[in-house]
Amino acid sequence: MRTNNDGMEYLFNPKSIAVIGASENPEKLGYQVMKSLTMEEQPSWNTIPINPGKKEIMGIKVLPSVLEVKEEIDLAIVLLPAYLVPGKVKECVAKKVKAIILITTGFKEIEDPQGNDLQKEVAELANKAKIPIIGPNSFGLFNVSSGMNATFNSDFPTIVRKGKIALLSQSGGMAGIFGYLSKNMNIGFSKIISLGNRCNVDFAEMLGYLMEDLDTEVIAMYIEGIDNPRQLLKVAAQFRGRKPIIVYKVGRSRVSDSASQSHTGSLSGRYEIYQGAFRQAGLLTVDSSIELLDVAKALGLSLLPKGPNVAVLSGQAGPAMAACDVCEARGLKISPFNSESQTKLNNILPPISIRTNPVDLGPSWNNISMIKKSIQVILKDKITSSLLLFFVFSSVNEDNFFSLSEAFERNLEGKPIIASFHAPLGGKWENEIRSLEESNILLNYPTPERAAMALAALWEYKKIWDLRE
Amino acid sequence: MRTNNDGMEYLFNPKSIAVIGASENPEKLGYQVMKSLTMEEQPSWNTIPINPGKKEIMGIKVLPSVLEVKEEIDLAIVLLPAYLVPGKVKECVAKKVKAIILITTGFKEIEDPQGNDLQKEVAELANKAKIPIIGPNSFGLFNVSSGMNATFNSDFPTIVRKGKIALLSQSGGMAGIFGYLSKNMNIGFSKIISLGNRCNVDFAEMLGYLMEDLDTEVIAMYIEGIDNPRQLLKVAAQFRGRKPIIVYKVGRSRVSDSASQSHTGSLSGRYEIYQGAFRQAGLLTVDSSIELLDVAKALGLSLLPKGPNVAVLSGQAGPAMAACDVCEARGLKISPFNSESQTKLNNILPPISIRTNPVDLGPSWNNISMIKKSIQVILKDKITSSLLLFFVFSSVNEDNFFSLSEAFERNLEGKPIIASFHAPLGGKWENEIRSLEESNILLNYPTPERAAMALAALWEYKKIWDLRE
Repeated sequence: MRTNNDGMEYLFNPKSIAVIGASENPEKLGYQVMKSLTMEEQPSWNTIPINPGKKEIMGIKVLPSVLEVKEEIDLAIVLLPAYLVPGKVKECVAKKVKAIILITTGFKEIEDPQGNDLQKEVAELANKAKIPIIGPNSFGLFNVSSGMNATFNSDFPTIVRKGKIALLSQSGGMAGIFGYLSKNMNIGFSKIISLGNRCNVDFAEMLGYLMEDLDTEVIAMYIEGIDNPRQLLKVAAQFRGRKPIIVYKVGRSRVSDSASQSHTGSLSGRYEIYQGAFRQAGLLTVDSSIELLDVAKALGLSLLPKGPNVAVLSGQAGPAMAACDVCEARGLKISPFNSESQTKLNNILPPISIRTNPVDLGPSWNNISMIKKSIQVILKDKITSSLLLFFVFSSVNEDNFFSLSEAFERNLEGKPIIASFHAPLGGKWENEIRSLEESNILLNYPTPERAAMALAALWEYKKIWDLRE
Repeated sequence: MRTNNDGMEYLFNPKSIAVIGASENPEKLGYQVMKSLTMEEQPSWNTIPINPGKKEIMGIKVLPSVLEVKEEIDLAIVLLPAYLVPGKVKECVAKKVKAIILITTGFKEIEDPQGNDLQKEVAELANKAKIPIIGPNSFGLFNVSSGMNATFNSDFPTIVRKGKIALLSQSGGMAGIFGYLSKNMNIGFSKIISLGNRCNVDFAEMLGYLMEDLDTEVIAMYIEGIDNPRQLLKVAAQFRGRKPIIVYKVGRSRVSDSASQSHTGSLSGRYEIYQGAFRQAGLLTVDSSIELLDVAKALGLSLLPKGPNVAVLSGQAGPAMAACDVCEARGLKISPFNSESQTKLNNILPPISIRTNPVDLGPSWNNISMIKKSIQVILKDKITSSLLLFFVFSSVNEDNFFSLSEAFERNLEGKPIIASFHAPLGGKWENEIRSLEESNILLNYPTPERAAMALAALWEYKKIWDLRE
């Protein structure tokens, strides 16, 4: 197994890419990969279609084999049927190709033991030549930072935005779902990688690479089964607190455990054991795909709280209560304000509001001046480490939203502000939310519970970060 | 406490509505309520603004008091400060007003015991005259079926669609959030009601009314605290299995429990005790606002499964595994197909696909003919009671989606089909999904886990339904 990153760089930033199995039939993946690679207007790579039966694809000259290519090939993407793959890998070795993405299925994941033998053969060839392989049984990878979409989903660049999260997914299907889900969540990615059967690049190797990657600040992993858990945990522990790593591990049930064995050729194992080991290694664990993205977004865009004490400020009682339930269940504390802040709040808000933590503005839900002053007091409160904000806007108060941002200017200690704002405003409102999020002023979530959950993950990571070496 | 529905009908279907505290200042709720009531193009009610200081509001003649109104008043909406409310309720009694929505805050929910006294006084006046009151401390109610928006959120009709779900929320803030969330979830409501402090109409009374309401097929409740749990459980048990009732109860934590006491004047109580009692009474319980809507949608639009056996058919392994985890944790079973169906599937799909349950199409993910045939076999399988379907579409296979619906035509036994489909298509795609949902062909959820969760709730409700009297 490779552990150095020499070849890895060529997976993500190749200067030349050979598409072995390029096609001009839109129903073929070899067409879609060509489309993905040639869509970028100013590519930093050269795309070379390989197909012995064609002369030109998408206006680009086709060569019959990588051995006929005159220039160096940094990356080869292989799409041919499984039985042809060892031969093509041999050609790549001979051509000194530096990295391979193997999209083809029909290896370790199939019932027929021949698949396993074939994968072993490919791995041995690649390991001997020190060529890292993504796959087989992978949908490829998308370097969102550079625009290099080496997947067969040519729509990806229209769906996925640039950002700081590297998504490392065993499953191509789930990687697709995460991409689509991210569209309305203001989540951006640095890299999206589908590891597939992990021929010689497993989670541990990729983690090592992504830790060094300057475009990546958060690593989100979707795991089905792990062949070498010790190696993964060792690498994770070694990088503890350097960048947040979030894990969504499926295969918890009897059925999906055995499905994992079928699908990607590895047992998923007892989840309870994994969960404990993950935590010990400084990995954050989550329980659903939405939570993986929610938490990744928080860790990518928010500051970390210095302590567990949360202040809740809500226009109405309900959202505050729903959030408090989550906070208390996940280790956050809804503590009283210090006496100085409480006195100030008592002067700002009328007795008919609930002025203690969690603060419920009650009939003052609509009073922007009181809201702004209250936020300023709470952000300075010595006990409070973070703020949860819940407002429901409608035509009677929607203008308040746009003047709210002034209140956050004095967040001098950088306390995380996580909100769940709702408004009927559409585009203008969404742009303002996005701008607040991208300026690291606050984060917005669709429900109070998800806001509280994201904040709890920030606090969990703060504790991991404190233990870094 | 009233238990008959005589006056309740006037809350939802009044012919004449007096707005006591109508205003022409857009910052006042009395303006927003007027706007809400007068926006409907063909209202089935007459709106009468009441304000001693004005002659005309929004082109409508204003009267100084309900006592000056010549016609009968079915519903009065009261927006004046709390101390004025008992006097106005007395006028309503004198005028023989049939129902009241009391939006005003400052009653049982405030620290000052005067608030509690005031609420008692109002309740006594109303009970004596048999006038049902929604509120105080309520944002009103929206009869979505008739278009009568008696809330101060005049944007509601642009956000919320007509449907079969009655949303019964203690909190106006949460009712607003549910409304906004529903917008992208293809969820429609019959009624949205914010109960507030429950002066003399509590969950139990409203449940009784909604059970008889022809527009309502599912009841979704958001509860903070319950004054009279026995009464609620009694009514729920009495209607067991007649219409699904889903409960999201907050106030589980120490802090939010005491917040509940402050906010709506009732202790929320130990959640574990409630949960057991809810289940015994045939109520479905959920753990988040998203889950409340997800489950309400399923129960509003889907058929019920006849048994716990789920077939999973997925284009990729990952989504199937994530769903299987949820299925097994929530009482659904991923059982083997019967031998006849298995033989057929073995003939349809190549050995490289995983053909046993959960089915992973593998390299056939793209083959629409195989997909359609597989669906038809599974829908006829004697062991399978429901089907989970997971496909990720992109430009290479997006056309498949539109021919998929043929496969569902032979769903002769009416097995529930719950999907998580993802596609880059935008409007055309969304319309097709909505049409499939509204034709009761299938339901679509944003993630495989949420699809599985919704299916598990259908099975839970089937068991409740089997025990109906």
